[in-house]
Amino acid sequence: MIQHTVVFRLRHPAGSAEEAEFLATGHAVLTAIPGVEEFTIRRQVSAKSDLTHQFSMRFADQATYDAYDAHPAHRAFVSERWAPEVVAFQEYDFEE
Amino acid sequence: MIQHTVVFRLRHPAGSAEEAEFLATGHAVLTAIPGVEEFTIRRQVSAKSDLTHQFSMRFADQATYDAYDAHPAHRAFVSERWAPEVVAFQEYDFEE
Repeated sequence: MIQHTVVFRLRHPAGSAEEAEFLATGHAVLTAIPGVEEFTIRRQVSAKSDLTHQFSMRFADQATYDAYDAHPAHRAFVSERWAPEVVAFQEYDFEE
Repeated sequence: MIQHTVVFRLRHPAGSAEEAEFLATGHAVLTAIPGVEEFTIRRQVSAKSDLTHQFSMRFADQATYDAYDAHPAHRAFVSERWAPEVVAFQEYDFEE
């Protein structure tokens, strides 16, 4: 398994309707892509980072991860929602 | 629960005896501190970060986390091993 994670901060105010809508749409769009397992959204709360949320998901293997990355629904979410609404982020992937 | 994580890079070469010894000592010292649950060490493999390992642990609540942070064994590991051997790191904590 590979755990794919991204920690990020939105341009929307904490607790706003825009924040809630972004998170709900991200969940709906990304969990519908084949191969995505154990998708979670969590708050990042350490004061040692100014990023505020994490998306996490698991893939069975690298080929499944690559297919997700290339999937049109993922690419559309990145270009139409992620790029304009996320002001900072960092990806990490963990081998399991 | 709170998941406390730190992603980091050692000054030791990948696959070296020094790397293995650091990871083994970190595991032994940190898992012996009261309140540390589900301690894991994983490799960070995304090319979008130059950090190479992650320590992760869970605490039942903030008071348990604070007690870990203040514990002499944690403080000694940070000053005697972490500071001289870790060249870059980033902490993240996630609410669960």
